[in-house]
Amino acid sequence: MDFFFNPRGVAIIGASRDVGRPGHVILRNFLENMISGSFKGEVYPVNPNARRILGVQCYKSVLELEGLVDLAVISVPAAIVPKVLEECGEAKVKGAIIISSGFSEVGNTRLEQEVVEIARRNNIRVIGPNCVGIYDAYSGVDTIFLEVSKILEGAPILATPRPKPGRIAFITQSGAFGAAILDYMAGSGLGISKFISHGNRCDVDEVDLVEYLARDDKTDVILLYLESIGRGREFYEVARETTKIKPIIALKVGRTTAGARAAASHTGALAGSHQVFTAALKQAGVIVAETMEEMMDLAKAFVNQIPARGERIAIVTDGGGMGVIASDTVEILGGKVEKPREETLKKLRKLKEDGVIPDFASIENPIDLTGVATTEMFIKTLEIVGQADEFDGIIIFPLHHIPTLEAGYEDKMMEVIRGIKKPVVVCDVGEAEMAKLVRMKFDKYGVPAYPSPERAANVMMKLVNYGKYLLKVGAYQDYVNRKILGKGN
Amino acid sequence: MDFFFNPRGVAIIGASRDVGRPGHVILRNFLENMISGSFKGEVYPVNPNARRILGVQCYKSVLELEGLVDLAVISVPAAIVPKVLEECGEAKVKGAIIISSGFSEVGNTRLEQEVVEIARRNNIRVIGPNCVGIYDAYSGVDTIFLEVSKILEGAPILATPRPKPGRIAFITQSGAFGAAILDYMAGSGLGISKFISHGNRCDVDEVDLVEYLARDDKTDVILLYLESIGRGREFYEVARETTKIKPIIALKVGRTTAGARAAASHTGALAGSHQVFTAALKQAGVIVAETMEEMMDLAKAFVNQIPARGERIAIVTDGGGMGVIASDTVEILGGKVEKPREETLKKLRKLKEDGVIPDFASIENPIDLTGVATTEMFIKTLEIVGQADEFDGIIIFPLHHIPTLEAGYEDKMMEVIRGIKKPVVVCDVGEAEMAKLVRMKFDKYGVPAYPSPERAANVMMKLVNYGKYLLKVGAYQDYVNRKILGKGN
Repeated sequence: MDFFFNPRGVAIIGASRDVGRPGHVILRNFLENMISGSFKGEVYPVNPNARRILGVQCYKSVLELEGLVDLAVISVPAAIVPKVLEECGEAKVKGAIIISSGFSEVGNTRLEQEVVEIARRNNIRVIGPNCVGIYDAYSGVDTIFLEVSKILEGAPILATPRPKPGRIAFITQSGAFGAAILDYMAGSGLGISKFISHGNRCDVDEVDLVEYLARDDKTDVILLYLESIGRGREFYEVARETTKIKPIIALKVGRTTAGARAAASHTGALAGSHQVFTAALKQAGVIVAETMEEMMDLAKAFVNQIPARGERIAIVTDGGGMGVIASDTVEILGGKVEKPREETLKKLRKLKEDGVIPDFASIENPIDLTGVATTEMFIKTLEIVGQADEFDGIIIFPLHHIPTLEAGYEDKMMEVIRGIKKPVVVCDVGEAEMAKLVRMKFDKYGVPAYPSPERAANVMMKLVNYGKYLLKVGAYQDYVNRKILGKGN
Repeated sequence: MDFFFNPRGVAIIGASRDVGRPGHVILRNFLENMISGSFKGEVYPVNPNARRILGVQCYKSVLELEGLVDLAVISVPAAIVPKVLEECGEAKVKGAIIISSGFSEVGNTRLEQEVVEIARRNNIRVIGPNCVGIYDAYSGVDTIFLEVSKILEGAPILATPRPKPGRIAFITQSGAFGAAILDYMAGSGLGISKFISHGNRCDVDEVDLVEYLARDDKTDVILLYLESIGRGREFYEVARETTKIKPIIALKVGRTTAGARAAASHTGALAGSHQVFTAALKQAGVIVAETMEEMMDLAKAFVNQIPARGERIAIVTDGGGMGVIASDTVEILGGKVEKPREETLKKLRKLKEDGVIPDFASIENPIDLTGVATTEMFIKTLEIVGQADEFDGIIIFPLHHIPTLEAGYEDKMMEVIRGIKKPVVVCDVGEAEMAKLVRMKFDKYGVPAYPSPERAANVMMKLVNYGKYLLKVGAYQDYVNRKILGKGN
């Protein structure tokens, strides 16, 4: 399916001069990406009624482009999609993204079936219809017809920004949900490898896409928004193989009667039993997210951190309350927050004796350095906890509010965090300048930072669960080796 | 207890010339607030070894200030707190905030007991010790010794900003948690009435504070961070009376073995059985938040929206996927997302016939206006749904990504939302410019906006639960009348 993501030639069928139309926005995306150098192929607008659009010569039909086009992006009225697709067949097009709606989602299943038959007969793979299509942050393929900016009081305002290149892939059945996630990722500084909105998925489905992304060396984590699964058995098989080498994080919606009814009227798909389905997903090693935000929290962690080897978590904090909340969350989710071993306690007591950390600090885990904590205290404590075998993961709360923690401590703490061979997540709470800066800096270093103790602890426990799964299927060590090699972490 | 929040004279005992010390920061807070006009009382630094601090004359002892001081803020070593407090007694001080630590939280219960005895004997009420104290956004009392800004690369960066005046009060046993919430509220644009961190709460406790805030006409919502409760029975009684007129939202931590152990070493308090405790809280009408973020999500909604009269929720969206997720969340939390009545369906069908909304829109709830939705479509639909008796609350998803929704739609939608006599919450997803602006604008209008469908739906269901509680105790109509009168909503 590489022709979808790295086509040599792309035909925009239904290219439009009308600025708001999908056929215009998509053409402009490709032209902009050609100019900026990210898209390396050729672009051919197809519109029988236009000579030039955005300065580029138009073609009356894809038939004029025989042999030049790998990928056709089709944005014409539903009724003429079959004719256009026949022509694509003649022109030896390999893949088609059908943006147009008006198919099974509005009950028009016969028309959709016709499209499938034409595609099969002509050996064309189809993404869609009724979809937003593809955004590939590396190759510059961008069929998203939602404009990056809107105009507010005469000035542009970022509306649907595209995330920077990264290592998270995202597959979605809902275009609107997809756009929202692009916005979330771009705004949060998360990078993407490939985005695929496949709408009614008349041909290319989750099975094909996960199989493809499993082999994609730009993708480390696969996210899935699912309202239903078409080929359950095949999906289970491909997921089970994939999760041994990269995490799949799924958000399955349509869980309740009302949700399933809403899903049915949305993508025309039947949801099936949620319980049965998620049980199968989990058995295949898929990480099932409960909410949109959880899916994104996990993605950020899994792309950089290794899974944990066990469930024993150390918490290092400068605020007691956050330590309490994190302890609660870890234990509620099946982890353990236990006292350090005597050997570790001895080293921590030595820190007290030497006056490195205060005498009134708690060292029994949570390790509470209290409101007099300095960067140095965190570093010395983390040196000990990072090496302590009795802990499988560390949650750090370097809450910036205390007077003794000087701005810029993230960089210094990284010197020790970098050497820790277990997963580390960070939490700093607040929505004003410094909190956001602290989190952003840790994020950039690959140590995921969260704005609440519950979210940080939850992510850690999902790293624990995934580690357990990998150990069970005998894939843990290979996974970790690959991760460490890949990142030079 | 008004002398804590509106003192005529304040003595800063332990005022310091040392810029980083609590006794310096607190004095500066008061002086700044005097200059800016928010603090209307007098400030007296007390330090036997200094003549002037920050240009203000120092006193050797509070004894020199007899009759002038309502409130003493004490920031001296623990060992001399008893002596200082005796002097406060002689000087007729009414309230003392003891910032100093080194009491029961480190096992020094005898010293704390001594403090309590001196206070009782001298008729002084005490907040603390081991606390951050008070921030009153209206009166300018600010004993928070955490500086608003830190210095990063030579320039100030907001570190512990104080929220603007508002109608949410916050009581916390953890100072660090308190600071984090101030940061969260200030950064999110949430206003505060009174902030009280009472640490070891040797005297003034939750019971006193909730009782006081129940009568405070600046406070509409009371938030509580609890590691333990001292006077269980009394708290139950005061909470039960208070929740009839204002919501109390509590985050109870120390829920697990590890969490309780952490809490014990933090504020020296025993957590007791979490199950028993939260059951009692709920019976008293207290809204129990599961997470820090949920507490803040709820606060934002309860300060402006009325509770729902029932559990039947309408969802109006321009993205099908978000409608599915919201339906799931509402039903999982015990609500209902049902088809509109025939009468309402008729009106919605008329909108289709008249070409106001598209023929392919879903009108069976979720009402999905799809990716071609315009501001006008939302308005016309909300006019009908807002009046439909079969719905008790509305969740709106005016997701900004779709091309047809013009920037600035919040203002136009408000014209109809303002007239709806049931709770309304909004969701727009994304972390880039426009998503943030859309949410901020709805927030400013008092319609709480959330960044994920699950959070929006969860808030709506808590408005449903609180409405049910008020109906059960016969307090619903009075509450709603007061709310509508108070806001001119």
